[in-house]
Amino acid sequence: AQLSLERDYETQREYDTRFRVLMESTSEAIVFVSVSTGEITEANSAAVALLDRPLENLIGNQLSGCFEGRKRGDMVDSLASQAISGVKKTILADVRGNGSSVQIFPTLFRAAGERILLCRLVPEGEGSALADDLN
Amino acid sequence: AQLSLERDYETQREYDTRFRVLMESTSEAIVFVSVSTGEITEANSAAVALLDRPLENLIGNQLSGCFEGRKRGDMVDSLASQAISGVKKTILADVRGNGSSVQIFPTLFRAAGERILLCRLVPEGEGSALADDLN
Repeated sequence: AQLSLERDYETQREYDTRFRVLMESTSEAIVFVSVSTGEITEANSAAVALLDRPLENLIGNQLSGCFEGRKRGDMVDSLASQAISGVKKTILADVRGNGSSVQIFPTLFRAAGERILLCRLVPEGEGSALADDLN
Repeated sequence: AQLSLERDYETQREYDTRFRVLMESTSEAIVFVSVSTGEITEANSAAVALLDRPLENLIGNQLSGCFEGRKRGDMVDSLASQAISGVKKTILADVRGNGSSVQIFPTLFRAAGERILLCRLVPEGEGSALADDLN
């Protein structure tokens, strides 16, 4: 039983490692958001650069706080509805404090009983080409 | 102990789920390759589309087999050296059977005692813009 426990732990760490390496290797800005709390649970370096604030100001904070004029509940609800609708429309939001705009492509999923949003953030203007790629 | 085992399992599944959702949400083509065997261990839908062969022809098969005129050991060795060098040069390879070319951006890491390559595959022409983003 001890050995199988260690093996489970190794497998878990391996997935954790793959997840982290994938997050940092992709050139796309990615954040994960808890639907129940609206808080950012994961963010990669590309998201740090695009949202223009350090990682420690992202993790554990409201996604809505990163954007101008967004109410916390409304924003996550809109993104979740958008993700469920399956339509490839995106939500455009203004990054707080630096004047740039990003398109948000949400994906909704469930892990360990919790609803989670994966949000791809694409600088406005680059969005249409990427959206076409995904159709 | 049973409870903690179940909790570990849940955590493992959660990371597994996040990894899978991230793989499928990114618009970039990603494959993971074992350095010791040269075999592809993971590939996303974007890679399936770009390499123009079904997932079951990718997983467990040699990465080199997806490209024209590539010897199995040589290709993985080149990619590993490239990843270690830290220089943002990429390897250009011709997709076997469909006439297109891709640039390969490798990242080398270790998980569960094994050396693994994450390869981002970018269609030739789109590559330079993405490479600049990462500098």
